[in-house]
Amino acid sequence: MAVYRVEIAYDGAPYHGWQIQPNVPTIQGKVNAALTHIFGTPIHVGGASRTDAGVHAVGQVVSFAPPEGHRHMGRFELQRALNALLPDDISALRTDLIHELDHADRPFHARHCARGKIYSYRLWFNRIEDPFARRTHWAMRHPADEEVQARIKAAAERMLGTHDFAGFRASSCEAEKTVRHLYRVELIPPAAGHFSGRIIVQGTAFLKNMVRIIVGTLMDVGYGRIPPERIDQILQTGDRTLAGRTAPPHGLFLEEVFYPDFPWTQERWSSPPR
Amino acid sequence: MAVYRVEIAYDGAPYHGWQIQPNVPTIQGKVNAALTHIFGTPIHVGGASRTDAGVHAVGQVVSFAPPEGHRHMGRFELQRALNALLPDDISALRTDLIHELDHADRPFHARHCARGKIYSYRLWFNRIEDPFARRTHWAMRHPADEEVQARIKAAAERMLGTHDFAGFRASSCEAEKTVRHLYRVELIPPAAGHFSGRIIVQGTAFLKNMVRIIVGTLMDVGYGRIPPERIDQILQTGDRTLAGRTAPPHGLFLEEVFYPDFPWTQERWSSPPR
Repeated sequence: MAVYRVEIAYDGAPYHGWQIQPNVPTIQGKVNAALTHIFGTPIHVGGASRTDAGVHAVGQVVSFAPPEGHRHMGRFELQRALNALLPDDISALRTDLIHELDHADRPFHARHCARGKIYSYRLWFNRIEDPFARRTHWAMRHPADEEVQARIKAAAERMLGTHDFAGFRASSCEAEKTVRHLYRVELIPPAAGHFSGRIIVQGTAFLKNMVRIIVGTLMDVGYGRIPPERIDQILQTGDRTLAGRTAPPHGLFLEEVFYPDFPWTQERWSSPPR
Repeated sequence: MAVYRVEIAYDGAPYHGWQIQPNVPTIQGKVNAALTHIFGTPIHVGGASRTDAGVHAVGQVVSFAPPEGHRHMGRFELQRALNALLPDDISALRTDLIHELDHADRPFHARHCARGKIYSYRLWFNRIEDPFARRTHWAMRHPADEEVQARIKAAAERMLGTHDFAGFRASSCEAEKTVRHLYRVELIPPAAGHFSGRIIVQGTAFLKNMVRIIVGTLMDVGYGRIPPERIDQILQTGDRTLAGRTAPPHGLFLEEVFYPDFPWTQERWSSPPR
């Protein structure tokens, strides 16, 4: 059975997050509505990441089975129809029809088949806020000097690998297992004369608010409110109260989802997880 | 007599342009209101450029005389007070108190003393719009391939130097003299794998809508709707109907204003006009 796969980008600011809810605008709700209009029958998509309210995406992946009895739409035909119906702040970047089954003979599913994700978190390192960056950056109001960068690097390296991230999740997180694997946690500081930096976080899967708590903790480490060694303690105890703030949602971007079992991988970023 | 000089940035989208008008939000209106609150007496600022509705600025310059009998505020004191009172989409980037008189013994004035300006116009060269770029880019929906770039370059070079730009102004423009001098008209194409490009226009002074008509005409040349040689004809005849579209306001940014007679010049861009 073939499955449609659609890569989308969105400005999350006006939405109550990815997941469909009654009476409030959500990304999933808008995508379902557009596809339901296109096919003339109710469509419900699955998304690779349930991004929180206010979180953005430049590479969210959604999937849905074509309704029975409908002819398959061409790649550009479906994309054009979607972009004509979706609001301006949601774009269909690419569509494809996936025929391959995975190693367990299951059809493609955006969430179940995902093998890893990259998030980026944009930070503004200047006392003066920028009218354009403020929608998508968390303002630090202080520069990321070499000492700040060194402290963040020391803390970030302690997070790499397989750990129990129970101390880096929202109290409302309902995941039963809290062990995750991070491949990359790195601050890209602003270029000379610029103020926009970002933290890249790449891993297999993430707990609720995990990236935002990692970023908030790294910033607290960077500006000396938390010592870098505290990271080990948080990973060992799972104690959320030892970690730092939860960074606000408006700086977070879902960049890319990896599906190594399927074709159609991208190379915008460095190597996908092994 | 000392004069305050303030460099500001703004997202022009929610405003009816720079110039104060009754009953609608304008940048000048917001800056006047903030300064009036700070000094406790009516302040009316002059701006270097009267940007149109929807046009942005990252380097607008405004000036005003301190009210009589008020102590002079420190640079950071005034800036902090302004940023606390201005809306989030307007930022005071820098403030200064100018004591020098110009060569004609006049105090500093943001508009009268300006010797040149740089505008940039952001363009999106891809069929798929981007949820983040769409607020600040004019979408071309086609790539800027080498042929398109060559045509734009040929047309842009014909605009350089001193010409009568009567064919590149809005019909509502009331300027008596229409001769202007352009130092730079250049397309910076998108980097490999990116879709955001820009046109840089640098000159002494500009007629109403001049940059937007230049950009619209260059795009029409680029995509073959107007031959590059037509530029000479427009400059010779002053016939607006021979030129291209007026590019929409949301891609236009006032980047920098030059005041060679005063200190405090910046070097974000290449050399200022001679």
